Amino acid sequence: MSNYNVVGKRIPKLDAAQKAMGRAEYIQDIKLPGMLYGKILYSKYAHAKIIKIDISKAKALPGVHAVLTGNDVPEKMKMGFYKDNPPIKKGKVCSFRDEVAAVAAKTPEIAKKALGLIEIEYEELEGIFDPEKAMEKESPLVHEHSKSNVLNLPWKLHYGDVEKAQEEAAFVVEDRFTTTWVTHCCMGTSGAVALFDASDNLTIYTNTQIPSLAQKDFLESLKAMGLKNKRVRVIKPIIGGGFGSKLDTYAYEHIAILLAHKCRKPVKLIFDRMEEFTATSTRQPAIIDIKQGCDKDGKLLFRDIKMILDNGAHTSWGATTPSVMMMPITSLYRVDNVRYDAKCVYTNNTYSQAMRGYGNPQATFAIESSIDMLAEKAGIDPIEFRRINRNHPGDITPQGFKITTCGMDLCLDTVEKELRKTASNEKSVGIGIASLIHVGGGARIYKSDGCGAILKIDDYGKVDVFTGGTDMGQGLDNITAQIVAEELGLLVEDINVVHSDTDVCPWDVGAHASRSTFVAGNAALGAAKKVKAKLLEFGSEILDTPAESLVLRDRLIFVPNDPEKSMPIDKLLRKAHFSPGGTMLMADHFYDPANENLGKDFKGNMSMTYTFGVHGVRVKVDEETGKVQVLEYVAAHDVGQAINPLLLEGQVYGGVVMGLGYALSEEVVHQNGKNMNANFRDYKLFTAKDAVKITAYVFETPDEEGPFGAKGIGEPGCVPTAPAIANAIYDAVGVRITNLPITPEKVLAAIKEKKKRPLN
Amino acid sequence: MSNYNVVGKRIPKLDAAQKAMGRAEYIQDIKLPGMLYGKILYSKYAHAKIIKIDISKAKALPGVHAVLTGNDVPEKMKMGFYKDNPPIKKGKVCSFRDEVAAVAAKTPEIAKKALGLIEIEYEELEGIFDPEKAMEKESPLVHEHSKSNVLNLPWKLHYGDVEKAQEEAAFVVEDRFTTTWVTHCCMGTSGAVALFDASDNLTIYTNTQIPSLAQKDFLESLKAMGLKNKRVRVIKPIIGGGFGSKLDTYAYEHIAILLAHKCRKPVKLIFDRMEEFTATSTRQPAIIDIKQGCDKDGKLLFRDIKMILDNGAHTSWGATTPSVMMMPITSLYRVDNVRYDAKCVYTNNTYSQAMRGYGNPQATFAIESSIDMLAEKAGIDPIEFRRINRNHPGDITPQGFKITTCGMDLCLDTVEKELRKTASNEKSVGIGIASLIHVGGGARIYKSDGCGAILKIDDYGKVDVFTGGTDMGQGLDNITAQIVAEELGLLVEDINVVHSDTDVCPWDVGAHASRSTFVAGNAALGAAKKVKAKLLEFGSEILDTPAESLVLRDRLIFVPNDPEKSMPIDKLLRKAHFSPGGTMLMADHFYDPANENLGKDFKGNMSMTYTFGVHGVRVKVDEETGKVQVLEYVAAHDVGQAINPLLLEGQVYGGVVMGLGYALSEEVVHQNGKNMNANFRDYKLFTAKDAVKITAYVFETPDEEGPFGAKGIGEPGCVPTAPAIANAIYDAVGVRITNLPITPEKVLAAIKEKKKRPLN
Repeated sequence: MSNYNVVGKRIPKLDAAQKAMGRAEYIQDIKLPGMLYGKILYSKYAHAKIIKIDISKAKALPGVHAVLTGNDVPEKMKMGFYKDNPPIKKGKVCSFRDEVAAVAAKTPEIAKKALGLIEIEYEELEGIFDPEKAMEKESPLVHEHSKSNVLNLPWKLHYGDVEKAQEEAAFVVEDRFTTTWVTHCCMGTSGAVALFDASDNLTIYTNTQIPSLAQKDFLESLKAMGLKNKRVRVIKPIIGGGFGSKLDTYAYEHIAILLAHKCRKPVKLIFDRMEEFTATSTRQPAIIDIKQGCDKDGKLLFRDIKMILDNGAHTSWGATTPSVMMMPITSLYRVDNVRYDAKCVYTNNTYSQAMRGYGNPQATFAIESSIDMLAEKAGIDPIEFRRINRNHPGDITPQGFKITTCGMDLCLDTVEKELRKTASNEKSVGIGIASLIHVGGGARIYKSDGCGAILKIDDYGKVDVFTGGTDMGQGLDNITAQIVAEELGLLVEDINVVHSDTDVCPWDVGAHASRSTFVAGNAALGAAKKVKAKLLEFGSEILDTPAESLVLRDRLIFVPNDPEKSMPIDKLLRKAHFSPGGTMLMADHFYDPANENLGKDFKGNMSMTYTFGVHGVRVKVDEETGKVQVLEYVAAHDVGQAINPLLLEGQVYGGVVMGLGYALSEEVVHQNGKNMNANFRDYKLFTAKDAVKITAYVFETPDEEGPFGAKGIGEPGCVPTAPAIANAIYDAVGVRITNLPITPEKVLAAIKEKKKRPLN
Repeated sequence: MSNYNVVGKRIPKLDAAQKAMGRAEYIQDIKLPGMLYGKILYSKYAHAKIIKIDISKAKALPGVHAVLTGNDVPEKMKMGFYKDNPPIKKGKVCSFRDEVAAVAAKTPEIAKKALGLIEIEYEELEGIFDPEKAMEKESPLVHEHSKSNVLNLPWKLHYGDVEKAQEEAAFVVEDRFTTTWVTHCCMGTSGAVALFDASDNLTIYTNTQIPSLAQKDFLESLKAMGLKNKRVRVIKPIIGGGFGSKLDTYAYEHIAILLAHKCRKPVKLIFDRMEEFTATSTRQPAIIDIKQGCDKDGKLLFRDIKMILDNGAHTSWGATTPSVMMMPITSLYRVDNVRYDAKCVYTNNTYSQAMRGYGNPQATFAIESSIDMLAEKAGIDPIEFRRINRNHPGDITPQGFKITTCGMDLCLDTVEKELRKTASNEKSVGIGIASLIHVGGGARIYKSDGCGAILKIDDYGKVDVFTGGTDMGQGLDNITAQIVAEELGLLVEDINVVHSDTDVCPWDVGAHASRSTFVAGNAALGAAKKVKAKLLEFGSEILDTPAESLVLRDRLIFVPNDPEKSMPIDKLLRKAHFSPGGTMLMADHFYDPANENLGKDFKGNMSMTYTFGVHGVRVKVDEETGKVQVLEYVAAHDVGQAINPLLLEGQVYGGVVMGLGYALSEEVVHQNGKNMNANFRDYKLFTAKDAVKITAYVFETPDEEGPFGAKGIGEPGCVPTAPAIANAIYDAVGVRITNLPITPEKVLAAIKEKKKRPLN
């Protein structure tokens, strides 16, 4: 057990009571004087020319302040990784969610009514909804100016010699796995409130995971609007879920900005639940062809993956998921020969976005299903097979990832032990496992992976920390408070964490890649260390003792076992403040990890450390209905140091439940580009009633660079769930489902198909 | 002329447009979800026992959430310098403004109605309203537990030997001067909104000039309520005037806290205009007996002052004005022998508070009227008399004030020149002048006179400064922005000043004593210097040139006359940020001036520097009506360095207009403790229609310790106005008015009286 006083404690979410009491202020609650309400009109077709738009009736409606069409959007105002997406489309629409007009009005009702008065004449075009078809030469182009629907993106690597390894392999398996659209289902719908001051500086309240990068996007929009050298203040209110959905800026934000500037009033644009389903971005669907081979002893020799990704009609940052998929592909288990080739393809479907795991769940579904198949072919127990190939501390993977700490062995042992506790000879019951690797120490995908923190401590021993890190419900405020409290010998209630306001908080690249505990934690710790040094210096002087012998703990500064040399920290602070040349203590720190951007060959140590885990599941399959019942779920993770085990386990539980939905039930159904289940009745989210018992094992393998040894754990929980389930179903009833979600219909059909086949 | 780029420029108030557009958010505009409205019931008598309070009918009124009486106030919850003032009184009331009950209700209307339903049985007691009478032994006691109405306060000093000097003096004058109640007349009335979070931490929006000290007061109230170790966040919204009125915490704030805690909801308590007149504190009325003498050459030999101050029923920080009155008494002009004895006396009148000048206008009225009288007696021109006795740089005054820079000579010359421009032989026209000394470099009246600042600069060269300093309309945000912009080579629009929020802003002792430009300016400058050093370091590296040769100006870093070595600062910042080990630039600074607390003998160098000024006025007196017309007003000030001459002149104009009201028309009329003119019809505030032409002369005598040489100038403008006017009236018509305000009635009566007297 650690000797920590605050770190490692199960301290409930600091804002839990506030949320429980209904006092938390979400974007929905923000009301500003004179505020107008914005609404967006979406395309009627998946692919069409806009022949004519008549907004005259909408403009004439009393209470309407502005109506915008694509003509009102400055030419250079474009969104996404490719900058191929103007917030309102002009001339042509490429998907049902394409924005064609927007309105600001005195009430949401008037705004909605005005949308109905906008008359648009379309000329429908042939749509393309299947990425494989879209790759064919004769297919219609989603964007005429590009010669092909295949994006010119570089996701291609080859380390070692896959061809040679394949020749040498004793066993080889090859299969195709597919995944579909799922969505984040944030309980708080998206929205923004934008307002300009008299000097055309912008303040925007918005649901974002990237206040600093969103600020940059909005500054670019302002520039496109001719507003140069302005200030943009991004404030993120409390949000009801992120999960990656807010890692980009969206049309609604830029439209709110355009409307606010046009009307010279604050404009609020909030999604209703249907819009949340239809107009936010999904996890990217993938078609994954995977081939793996091993030698006769089960040693993995190669991995060869081809992938087709449905990019949808526009290119968000979500299009860069292959950069993260490479991680499990090159580095989950020891494998020297790896080839990967991903194609992102424009279609007239909805465009995708980041979602918890950022490509890793898709890739891991294919890899870990395939690993089980290979183990079977090699005649090796799947757990044993993984043990043979597991990662080790000190490894450098083909992609150049430096594995500092790795608890995969512990996780494998634990999951095996848990699953073997119960005898598994019941009919239609099976067990399955799957492992994961993920970044656990930041992920350098931008020019800086850094985060700043500023800390001040008042005369009463109360601390304010301004962090670049974004709390979006995951509990970064707790983590930051616990880290600072531990370092300064205070209690968690002494620490106030101010986040998500670019005026107050230093820069941070955003809440992604499970990086916040590690990077924002280190930033806060760095500032706390500077303040601690000053406290010890003052303490040394006032208690007349060497600084090295002083300890800060429980609001006291003291020499252990010397009751004479002890003083409440707040008293020390007042002495420091109220003396000649006195001062209050403040400090700042900017922590940018020494991780590397991936090079041209995609090599580079992307993260300061990596996190590992193994999930095991026991399922029972109803062979009459195909329904899969999860009997037991064990999730073992290597976490470095749990700053707060309660929240950490919460991340694991939440991740697993999200993973279970991904595995078994969730799917955004699209028919010719149209979302067919934009509501919680038809979109089968895993809910409380579907919850299963999850046992989380948390192994502490303190990482040298992590704050108090911690690694990130935000995403891993949902990464290996689907293959673990698929493997367990195979173990239970001998059918292998390769496309997600594994619905009862698919299982039943496979069982029937299997029964038709002659017995081995 | 200075070589500054931003400092010294006439840059309009940064929030001017926001205010002009009606977008500034005052306390009145704050609405929180579920907010209740508080109202206070005041005493019906100036002095009475409370026999019985029946709140049952008020409590039963639908919409009423809480009714508080003195019984609901914790015993230790007391306000003011003496802690003699509970926010709601129990058992006894001592003035008409004494709070006897408070209500929180769903609407202000219900709250008001509920007040009317509170039934109180009083037993009236004899009141005492004249401080001289109150000093008599047989007078009723305002507070029975004190043996006397005279407060046990130590305002007594004697430097040199006044008795001896008096014997040696060739000329001696002696007279009594009196001043009365005037009030701040803030356009924004007082108010607060208090709310508790689930953990009983308090947030209070309040009109205050002392966020950090108010936080301390509120923490003490929380402690009295049994809420220990809590956090208090004080946020000051934009306020419509301070002028010293907000240098203490008030009953309404503590009542809002009590109500918010009782109701578990936000409670807003806003004064209406009548309450603003009756329930806020006035400038302290003074009875001043002054004797001064000089030798035959006009050299001032001694000054002997006895003062009686009407303390009212309770003791606010305003009771400490004698500590500042000492400044002109001991240090306005060179005078070696000084004696001062002030008595503060409880009465059943309203209690007083700080007001612009903090006692200095009262003292200077007596001193500068008396100086003219002494000059006349000595047969010396009053301007010449002042020149003989003026302060000099390098002087150390009897109280120990170290005069670093002093522009009194320049001010005297300029005012004389201006006044002599016009021939003065018109009938009933006269000129008068008066000088002033005031603290210009902080004022150490608390354990710390410090202020903290935190600064961060983003990738676009935009700066956020969190300052402890409080902008209350005086323009500290501009001053801070100009200082930081100058130091960092940026423009004023690049600087965002965040102030008046204790969560975000470092500690500061408060906006008083004209200290903000000096102290908060130095804090911001200190932080800017640290960032500048880092900028130069980066610049030196990137431009491959020694840091010493680099200049920051106009958003550029460059080597003068070397076009090769130049780069936009924002580009440099991005280079610093987006490089290995990169960082964004942040810094903090705490500036506590090296000034001294006054010792037991009241000696000590209270301020790092002192500011001087001379006002001259030409008046015409209507001998038929007694009405005084101000024909010309010249205000010459020694300001160190004007950071922003536009705002500085604004401070002078505003001060003079306030001084003119004090001199000629303003008076809170009290009859047996009752305010008889609690409205703008009967309280004769100087308004736009009364405005006179004021010419401000600003002399720059850069002070070594001031930021860019600046001294404070917030208060001086209103200090010498009244004696200048009184002296001019004497010059015009030969009557000496010794009690303020100098109304037409008093002038006419004096003229009539004079006419009755035999000619000399």
